[in-house]
Amino acid sequence: MRKVYSLVSLTKNRESKDAVLSLNIKQIQYPEQTREFDSRLTKTGRRSLSHSISHSSTDSNSSGGSDAENPEDEVSPRDMQQINSKGNMDFCIKNIKLADFGRREIELAEDEMTALMALRKAAQGEKPLAAAKIVGCTHVTAQTAVLFETLKVLGAQCRWAACNIYSTQDEVAAALAEQDFPVFAWKGESEDDFWWCIDRCVNVEGWEPNMILDDGGDMTHWIYKKYPHLFKKVKGIVEESITGIHRLHQLSKAGKLCVPAINVNDSVTKQKFDNLYCCRESILDSLKKTTDIMFGGKQVAICGYGEVGKGCSAALKAMGSVVYVTEIDPICALQACMDGFRLAKLGDVVRHVDMVITCTGNKNVVVREHMDLMKNGCVVCNMGRSNTEIDVNSLQTPELVWQHVRAQVDHIIWPDGKRIVLLAEGRVLNLSSSTVPIYVLSITATTQALALIELFNAPEGRYKQDVYLLPKKLVIFETFNTCFVFFVL
Amino acid sequence: MRKVYSLVSLTKNRESKDAVLSLNIKQIQYPEQTREFDSRLTKTGRRSLSHSISHSSTDSNSSGGSDAENPEDEVSPRDMQQINSKGNMDFCIKNIKLADFGRREIELAEDEMTALMALRKAAQGEKPLAAAKIVGCTHVTAQTAVLFETLKVLGAQCRWAACNIYSTQDEVAAALAEQDFPVFAWKGESEDDFWWCIDRCVNVEGWEPNMILDDGGDMTHWIYKKYPHLFKKVKGIVEESITGIHRLHQLSKAGKLCVPAINVNDSVTKQKFDNLYCCRESILDSLKKTTDIMFGGKQVAICGYGEVGKGCSAALKAMGSVVYVTEIDPICALQACMDGFRLAKLGDVVRHVDMVITCTGNKNVVVREHMDLMKNGCVVCNMGRSNTEIDVNSLQTPELVWQHVRAQVDHIIWPDGKRIVLLAEGRVLNLSSSTVPIYVLSITATTQALALIELFNAPEGRYKQDVYLLPKKLVIFETFNTCFVFFVL
Amino acid sequence: MRKVYSLVSLTKNRESKDAVLSLNIKQIQYPEQTREFDSRLTKTGRRSLSHSISHSSTDSNSSGGSDAENPEDEVSPRDMQQINSKGNMDFCIKNIKLADFGRREIELAEDEMTALMALRKAAQGEKPLAAAKIVGCTHVTAQTAVLFETLKVLGAQCRWAACNIYSTQDEVAAALAEQDFPVFAWKGESEDDFWWCIDRCVNVEGWEPNMILDDGGDMTHWIYKKYPHLFKKVKGIVEESITGIHRLHQLSKAGKLCVPAINVNDSVTKQKFDNLYCCRESILDSLKKTTDIMFGGKQVAICGYGEVGKGCSAALKAMGSVVYVTEIDPICALQACMDGFRLAKLGDVVRHVDMVITCTGNKNVVVREHMDLMKNGCVVCNMGRSNTEIDVNSLQTPELVWQHVRAQVDHIIWPDGKRIVLLAEGRVLNLSSSTVPIYVLSITATTQALALIELFNAPEGRYKQDVYLLPKKLVIFETFNTCFVFFVL
Amino acid sequence: MRKVYSLVSLTKNRESKDAVLSLNIKQIQYPEQTREFDSRLTKTGRRSLSHSISHSSTDSNSSGGSDAENPEDEVSPRDMQQINSKGNMDFCIKNIKLADFGRREIELAEDEMTALMALRKAAQGEKPLAAAKIVGCTHVTAQTAVLFETLKVLGAQCRWAACNIYSTQDEVAAALAEQDFPVFAWKGESEDDFWWCIDRCVNVEGWEPNMILDDGGDMTHWIYKKYPHLFKKVKGIVEESITGIHRLHQLSKAGKLCVPAINVNDSVTKQKFDNLYCCRESILDSLKKTTDIMFGGKQVAICGYGEVGKGCSAALKAMGSVVYVTEIDPICALQACMDGFRLAKLGDVVRHVDMVITCTGNKNVVVREHMDLMKNGCVVCNMGRSNTEIDVNSLQTPELVWQHVRAQVDHIIWPDGKRIVLLAEGRVLNLSSSTVPIYVLSITATTQALALIELFNAPEGRYKQDVYLLPKKLVIFETFNTCFVFFVL
Repeated sequence: MRKVYSLVSLTKNRESKDAVLSLNIKQIQYPEQTREFDSRLTKTGRRSLSHSISHSSTDSNSSGGSDAENPEDEVSPRDMQQINSKGNMDFCIKNIKLADFGRREIELAEDEMTALMALRKAAQGEKPLAAAKIVGCTHVTAQTAVLFETLKVLGAQCRWAACNIYSTQDEVAAALAEQDFPVFAWKGESEDDFWWCIDRCVNVEGWEPNMILDDGGDMTHWIYKKYPHLFKKVKGIVEESITGIHRLHQLSKAGKLCVPAINVNDSVTKQKFDNLYCCRESILDSLKKTTDIMFGGKQVAICGYGEVGKGCSAALKAMGSVVYVTEIDPICALQACMDGFRLAKLGDVVRHVDMVITCTGNKNVVVREHMDLMKNGCVVCNMGRSNTEIDVNSLQTPELVWQHVRAQVDHIIWPDGKRIVLLAEGRVLNLSSSTVPIYVLSITATTQALALIELFNAPEGRYKQDVYLLPKKLVIFETFNTCFVFFVL
Repeated sequence: MRKVYSLVSLTKNRESKDAVLSLNIKQIQYPEQTREFDSRLTKTGRRSLSHSISHSSTDSNSSGGSDAENPEDEVSPRDMQQINSKGNMDFCIKNIKLADFGRREIELAEDEMTALMALRKAAQGEKPLAAAKIVGCTHVTAQTAVLFETLKVLGAQCRWAACNIYSTQDEVAAALAEQDFPVFAWKGESEDDFWWCIDRCVNVEGWEPNMILDDGGDMTHWIYKKYPHLFKKVKGIVEESITGIHRLHQLSKAGKLCVPAINVNDSVTKQKFDNLYCCRESILDSLKKTTDIMFGGKQVAICGYGEVGKGCSAALKAMGSVVYVTEIDPICALQACMDGFRLAKLGDVVRHVDMVITCTGNKNVVVREHMDLMKNGCVVCNMGRSNTEIDVNSLQTPELVWQHVRAQVDHIIWPDGKRIVLLAEGRVLNLSSSTVPIYVLSITATTQALALIELFNAPEGRYKQDVYLLPKKLVIFETFNTCFVFFVL
Repeated sequence: MRKVYSLVSLTKNRESKDAVLSLNIKQIQYPEQTREFDSRLTKTGRRSLSHSISHSSTDSNSSGGSDAENPEDEVSPRDMQQINSKGNMDFCIKNIKLADFGRREIELAEDEMTALMALRKAAQGEKPLAAAKIVGCTHVTAQTAVLFETLKVLGAQCRWAACNIYSTQDEVAAALAEQDFPVFAWKGESEDDFWWCIDRCVNVEGWEPNMILDDGGDMTHWIYKKYPHLFKKVKGIVEESITGIHRLHQLSKAGKLCVPAINVNDSVTKQKFDNLYCCRESILDSLKKTTDIMFGGKQVAICGYGEVGKGCSAALKAMGSVVYVTEIDPICALQACMDGFRLAKLGDVVRHVDMVITCTGNKNVVVREHMDLMKNGCVVCNMGRSNTEIDVNSLQTPELVWQHVRAQVDHIIWPDGKRIVLLAEGRVLNLSSSTVPIYVLSITATTQALALIELFNAPEGRYKQDVYLLPKKLVIFETFNTCFVFFVL
Repeated sequence: MRKVYSLVSLTKNRESKDAVLSLNIKQIQYPEQTREFDSRLTKTGRRSLSHSISHSSTDSNSSGGSDAENPEDEVSPRDMQQINSKGNMDFCIKNIKLADFGRREIELAEDEMTALMALRKAAQGEKPLAAAKIVGCTHVTAQTAVLFETLKVLGAQCRWAACNIYSTQDEVAAALAEQDFPVFAWKGESEDDFWWCIDRCVNVEGWEPNMILDDGGDMTHWIYKKYPHLFKKVKGIVEESITGIHRLHQLSKAGKLCVPAINVNDSVTKQKFDNLYCCRESILDSLKKTTDIMFGGKQVAICGYGEVGKGCSAALKAMGSVVYVTEIDPICALQACMDGFRLAKLGDVVRHVDMVITCTGNKNVVVREHMDLMKNGCVVCNMGRSNTEIDVNSLQTPELVWQHVRAQVDHIIWPDGKRIVLLAEGRVLNLSSSTVPIYVLSITATTQALALIELFNAPEGRYKQDVYLLPKKLVIFETFNTCFVFFVL
């Protein structure tokens, strides 16, 4: 009964700006780690929130949403009894009345997530998830709603909670609830709410999950803590985030991982998109949004020539910049060299470049000594994974004046008047200054669906109690009006 | 006494985001054309205004400026008597108290306008504008202030008015006034104010201008109308805008141009920057800001392969798009072809492309028939000079639904649900969605200064009563920490 | 009766390697200049010859041709009486028996010269050259034969001589003669033969030419010298070579040019192809053929950023080289800079580059001081127009050892053992080491035909007694299976 | 005693054209496989030979070499007793008198193989190969001689035989013999000679090898067959060719591999160079040498987007071609797509492309049906590994006429006159029409040396009886005057 779907052709739709999520960024941690939990909320959490607001309320003209985001009435959803038009009450959300508005958002998203809709269409006859009982814990947005409803179409029963206390689109949650989808999520949950919602997904009489779709590992963690017996029936876990993968590997090392898991984050497709292809575009985007620099004729030092560095270098070269690459890995250095970039040590070029961009994943790649040498007006920013590539702490000294110029932009002024332009305080630039194209969200969501299908249908013995990468054959992307879905049932 | 300055090396500074102006766009016309004047104000004028506000008040955190932009007190500057710290009253501006804040803005701009500062430094000994009496009518901003003060350093006496009723930075005007610079400009002038300010520059006892620096032709027009006798002493006009050039050519045709004029707008440097190099960057910028589309793997039709089309095509190709070019000029078609683009007729590819970008300068390049064929989600926009390349009127029919999605973005929805994404209502995209890098403003300002020097110092007979392009030898640009100034005194 | 032909679609054919000619290089001069004539023959003449031989006899396997090129019998064609199969004797060639072989060569060339064949097909009904009597003096090869026969099809009567004593393909001349085409040319003419052949074209009883197609100006010169009265009927001259254009301009200056002339050499199409597009490919080709250097990761200094420099820079950048550009023209310098090349002075980079390529058109761009600084193994070559860009004479000193390594390659060895690699002894590299694609020859030939049509049909007064460029509307090129012919009858 | 060498800076030298070898192509097989052995000699063997001749005798002007290559005297070296100037006779070569000429060739090669010379210089103090006794079986050329002598400098004793009966440069062998290097090789060995030479390396009284450097596996095979006891002392095998690696893997599978082996062929560096970087250059080179096609504006179908396809696509795109990619691997397809290439099925584009280039590694990628659809003049060639990507057999039918046009070029003519241009009869194009840059040979040789050092010095247990890839840390390349040698002693 194996069946290969490929080259499913569909009308292609465009990307929209409503892409809200930085799916890799996990804000919520274990309940044990309360302090960290709080400090995270005050930092990235709020950034994420304002980001979301700017997109859904400022940018769009939809009045329907404003209600949800600036709620006058501060009654907790847990204290309200809501009921949908079919009489169903198995959900807990902000306001069921927002359902119509949310449905419109979902429909728009469907339009844009061709790959996922192609999969839905291709596999709806087969129902490859018939009998699957999935508990999910992800962002609850229009895009993920398309994923949930696709899973349903493919035969699955699902229950859902949010993986972030701020990112839920309440109108979308309402639309799901209206369709009898058991969803437990609202924007502005308390920490207690957060775990309560997760618990409502799992702790159900007469219903036991056999698949987990997680984004950050909180659902998995909760079941381990409270309902470990459920793992007997669970066929597998699909995890999206780096944090979650890390937790799974720790479990695996400790010999406690009792079901197979698929690491969606490190699938080839996702990696290529998140790094090479997205950064090729977002480096330009982010720099323009923050500095409005003209790229042509500029000299740029790019630290690191991995996928991110390759994307940044290619983009700036194409815009007419002269790019220097610093690299310590010999193979990557070789590639930079054969791609026509001048290999250099940062110290040798830092005096005369107009920009320094870090893409290494290492710590303290740009240190105070480098910044002391930079010329007036040099732009410094970080596209790498961690926030420590630029030694920003070294700039927190009395002789330097910090001048906040606009969002994401600080001038650091030396005693002699020289100023360098620090972007996003050295944090990952494109996460704060650029959005993830919905195209990429669509790829990720489809990959999650494929991973669920694969784990649920895999013959006995194919997967052991370990963390797996998605098999190469399960690949999806769309281009030129055609959605390429490679998978096997 | 000829002297060649070249390769003047200066510390290079970075571009800032404060670039406000679309210098080519003239919103003010003759007093006779009141109706058009008004209608323009309600369209482009307001766009320009909000643009300006977003940059100076929202993006920057400077509290000093807020005063000026949201004035509680609505007394007209014409009704106030202000005096600077030196006792001078020969100016008319919003509020002299803003001078300190404005000076800081000017200093920041100086930092960024290396080419102009290089010229100032190189020529301040010569004082090539000694005895020049310049009346100017341009935008009054931090960047143009650097120009005015450079002219002063080079020996000129100047009087200045704004060329746009909205674009004046009041704090900058204050800083100029504080330095005894006769400036007559404020944000939010009435039409009457506008001409009154211009008159105050020209109608001065005991002072007659001998040079005109114009941006739009209003100053020139006013002198022709009211004080034609002044032209006896005027050595020349330097004009920046297309509108102004057009007027000068009309005068010339009519045999009424009585002094030489230099057309700064069409200088090679400016043309290359405004079109090829700026568009190469601003097409990406504009598309990201409005649609957040991912460029990689997309198919794009670019109509026209002039400088603008070349810039757009190169940028999108570099980002991994497949680009089709439509072109009717054989030489440009040949170039597109040899640059590796597929030549096509729009009708042949319009069905399957993801974007259509017009760059022709012609009318109705994209018509309703094309848009009827486009696929769902196709993005349509115009990078060409005029606002008529896309036949937007043809979309104003009852069966189509317009949905305003966000600033600069409309969805046009066909009866069958197909939507196309129209950007900036078909107006020039990068003027509304991208800013001009200050680097380019710096080039333009330096070119204006060079043109004034050239006209003022030209030996008898070099220039007749005609409109000239800037001689090729007067070229300026900066790169790699070096500012290249090619000119001859 | 005006008619626009455009976008004539034809099956596209491929380029062949048989392209023999560097059409711009004129080896023959006036009889008065005997010494120069001889010295040229010993230099470029022979190079051209051996080039031709390598292509027609070594590379191809055709036995038919060997006869003609290594003739045992050294009887001069002028002393032989030959007759074609139709009884016609109005020609003078090597050997009429080679006609069949020559016809095959012409047919192959027809296949490859789509643009010209498109013109032939498009205009054969109109016969725009009916009543034209053309004397021609060009290379006589398979490609030019397609041009001659096209002119005939369009209605012209023609008589033809060779413009070079070595370049004639005898079998092609035979094929033309067999078709009653009056051709006077063979490979290995003496100087006396050369002028005798030209005279046989012009000095005909009862036939007077009214058009001249010249390549080098010898036919025009001969008529001026011997039969100036003929100019009364001549409607115009079409000239292909730089030398010929130079002569025409001298005539024009001296007030002696008595008919209009069209300068085909400087037509936009030809310039773009000869310089930008051809050099982009031939620089790689020439370097590989001579040095087999790997381009990736190399550092290259390119002197000059005109069309040739642009082509070379783009090609090497694309192959992964790091390119430095030296340039003194400010606009070109600006372009180099915005195209992402590092501007430099040669002296500043010459120590560490792997290659230096001159493309300036100036003298002594690379001098001994530069070469003294170059590192061991540096490759030096010239792509510019003249042979004096590299000061090769300065290398003719006792302390340097020249070692001829292979064709076009010399090592110059310094006393300390350092060697630099000099290509083509500093002469134009791609003329000696690369061939002109037949595609370009086809474009040129079609342009010549269009120029003849234009001059012959131009209404009285359109052209005066001057040298003209081809009007922009007369443009031809082919691409993507389509031959674009833009012209108006 | 570990020591890291890195970033060793040396004066960089240029590549020469003398690169002779296609190191991956093994012509010699087991003695058992005589029939295949012969058939290979008549095919690739001779091609390789003529290639070699063209480079050493035609292209260079060295008279010294002619002797060796066209020997009048046909006495076998085995029947001559030669003695070097030091009285040593432990070698068997063509002619010891050629030593001086060979030494010059080696010195030139030294100049060009910077990486290897850098290693020699860096490690000569350490003598990391002291006590190593290496038997080698590789091509014997100037380049490999630099390798042999480097091994000697690093402390090794060596004995050497040729891995190919045609590729030996006799003058180089003489120069080695003159320096007491025991070498057994001459150009034009018989099969019996071949094995005799190998035996002379191994079968020595009082000397037993402890390392094997092989290229094709013949030395390894011979020791297995004849002197298996030697393996007791052998510390490892370094193998260069695909064939040899294949044999090693077979031994390993059969449990017969009794020492560790390092697979040099599949080292990252070598793979990148052999495929991506070399093909990026050699596709252009090969096409120009065979067809002289102009790339600009051409349409090209490239089958396969692995490393070879990536190189070919990038090069042709850079030259202004429009490239279509066919690909079945989803990840590679995705990359092609995001790199801006149009994905297509060959059947859909074959009608209108100007070229088809196969780079897949699969069989029958281009079949008769495709070729039937191609337009007149379409060029078809293969850059992939195997010779079966184009189904050339399907063209061996009576209705098609084959016309051999020149070396590597055949026209296949259809009954209707259409011709397609088949290059190299469908065999790997760049092996026959382009040479391997010496830069790449230098990288390979240095990698071999590093592998020998690693295996010889590896602590007990690091390597088992298996085939290993070179550890990533052992990487070498040179660029920008700097030779990057990454290794650890």
